[in-house]
Amino acid sequence: MSDPILIERQGSFAVGGTVLTSPGSFDPYPIYPGPAGQTLHGDHAYVQFQIPPKARRHPLVMLHGGSTFGKTWESTFDDREGYQSIFLRRGHPVYIVDRPRQGRAGKMTEGATFEPRFSEQATFCVWRLGVWPDYFPNVQAPRDKEFLNQLFRSQFPSLGPRNHEVTVAAMSALFAKIGPAVLVTHSFGGIQGWLTALESTNIAGIVAYEPTQFVYPEGELPAPITSADAMVASITEDLEVPSEQFARLARIPIQIVYGDNIPVAPSPHGGLDLWRVSVPKARQFVEALRRHGGDAEVLELPSIGLNGNTHCPFSDLNNIAVADAMELWMNGRLLTV
Amino acid sequence: MSDPILIERQGSFAVGGTVLTSPGSFDPYPIYPGPAGQTLHGDHAYVQFQIPPKARRHPLVMLHGGSTFGKTWESTFDDREGYQSIFLRRGHPVYIVDRPRQGRAGKMTEGATFEPRFSEQATFCVWRLGVWPDYFPNVQAPRDKEFLNQLFRSQFPSLGPRNHEVTVAAMSALFAKIGPAVLVTHSFGGIQGWLTALESTNIAGIVAYEPTQFVYPEGELPAPITSADAMVASITEDLEVPSEQFARLARIPIQIVYGDNIPVAPSPHGGLDLWRVSVPKARQFVEALRRHGGDAEVLELPSIGLNGNTHCPFSDLNNIAVADAMELWMNGRLLTV
Repeated sequence: MSDPILIERQGSFAVGGTVLTSPGSFDPYPIYPGPAGQTLHGDHAYVQFQIPPKARRHPLVMLHGGSTFGKTWESTFDDREGYQSIFLRRGHPVYIVDRPRQGRAGKMTEGATFEPRFSEQATFCVWRLGVWPDYFPNVQAPRDKEFLNQLFRSQFPSLGPRNHEVTVAAMSALFAKIGPAVLVTHSFGGIQGWLTALESTNIAGIVAYEPTQFVYPEGELPAPITSADAMVASITEDLEVPSEQFARLARIPIQIVYGDNIPVAPSPHGGLDLWRVSVPKARQFVEALRRHGGDAEVLELPSIGLNGNTHCPFSDLNNIAVADAMELWMNGRLLTV
Repeated sequence: MSDPILIERQGSFAVGGTVLTSPGSFDPYPIYPGPAGQTLHGDHAYVQFQIPPKARRHPLVMLHGGSTFGKTWESTFDDREGYQSIFLRRGHPVYIVDRPRQGRAGKMTEGATFEPRFSEQATFCVWRLGVWPDYFPNVQAPRDKEFLNQLFRSQFPSLGPRNHEVTVAAMSALFAKIGPAVLVTHSFGGIQGWLTALESTNIAGIVAYEPTQFVYPEGELPAPITSADAMVASITEDLEVPSEQFARLARIPIQIVYGDNIPVAPSPHGGLDLWRVSVPKARQFVEALRRHGGDAEVLELPSIGLNGNTHCPFSDLNNIAVADAMELWMNGRLLTV
């Protein structure tokens, strides 16, 4: 057994969001009165936090991907410690976010319709376990049924249209509340991280696992890198932002991390071709940040001898080594003091 | 500062649920293929757990109410420790559930439509903070705006029709996985707790905070206690269950706890009259359990000198004293060894 994790304070809270008020006078008598005079608090983020004793100065704020929730950072699908516990043991306060309208932040100010979707075998490919039903030979994942059961149940349906504005507002409110912290994003959380960094002054560094979208100053959007799968274009669409905002982003140390089994040549599998497109796009983004004075890099895990990582390197079998790489990078930027 | 909380192991998992498979052959090429040949894992519960070193034998499994999620047991709306941390400090493993189709367990096998509802001022009354906008004079709650902000954002909309079957299946799977444990329920979680106890053999005790519905053996349903507010009837509707299943429930030690400011005479406020009806209903249930050999009791907190408790005694200002009462009861049943 390893030593116990020490927690000085833990809990959860809502942050950000809006309040709507229905016109009229509240009727205090019926148990189910009409909407008149009543409020609706919604569109906040849900945040769970744990703070170790004698904590390091910079908390880690962890923002999940598009079809998931805060579970991403908790224990792994095969029940080992994930980034939550790994970085608590290393002395960082950890804040895990459920983005507005997803997971525990499901109280929305807009209506939504949910249709169940059969999409798990496609996820197996996009998350780079392999091409269903075959695993990549070196994949850093166990191959038992319960692993996939947990992985598929770690997903979360989109309840409404994905809305960057409500997420960025809630994330900015979180950074305003807790002060300077390192933002760790996954996948679709990446673009929402860049957008938050344009608004917030409290982001001390960003580690982005496998983002597919980036931001550029006005007039500097690069030519798109295209895929034979037409749907890849929307998942990798970049955004133009005001130059002075981009300059703020360029002042933040940024590491962008990708795993293994990413094809170099175009792949007939759209779920793999997404990554063939995304890695050079990340390199273009890093070049743009550097042009504007930034400290940014792309880390492909195989380049440091870490092989077989999926779309979720932080929960793969070698996730301690992946965490070591993140800590080494943070160390170099004084983010672990 | 108090001492740190010690955690030997923590994490989260999905439990229960079903798997649907769409007919046909999976197409491994497009990033968004059709449903053919793909699966949908849904209707599980999400469970987060923390296990202290040298833990007591009986974990506590905490099941939230109808319009909430696992946050119920985390930090209080005014950012003090809730039952999660209080009972970890006392050596119990703690398992916090988000019921299927709610909170982090939002991946469903059925479609659903969500309509935003303005209902917070009514909640203020049903949760017995007072009659909006006036607080009860002795209420165990701070009266600042941020408290209400957190309280209202701790709610969760029903995404689909409430379904006892999927919850009971997931809860039973949880108890099968972790072994004998004490079930702690809140509000609507109460009826789902009784129903789980009819199925599972691993429930070592039940502490139910403010339930409104109960179960009876066939032929023993008592006459309903009625309210002038017609909606109260459905919220307090009892269920008939097979006698041999009820006998199993009667073997489990049960404590049912209510707070303060519950009217004795009929109230014109439906949200208060609900509790005027529920307390004597709980007494009838306790009588039925005792007739069948049960060890069951109703604890009204004012009877032990705890005044001003709301519908959420475990997170009220005096929640340490409320936890003491729970521990005392568990002690008497050897549930704290």
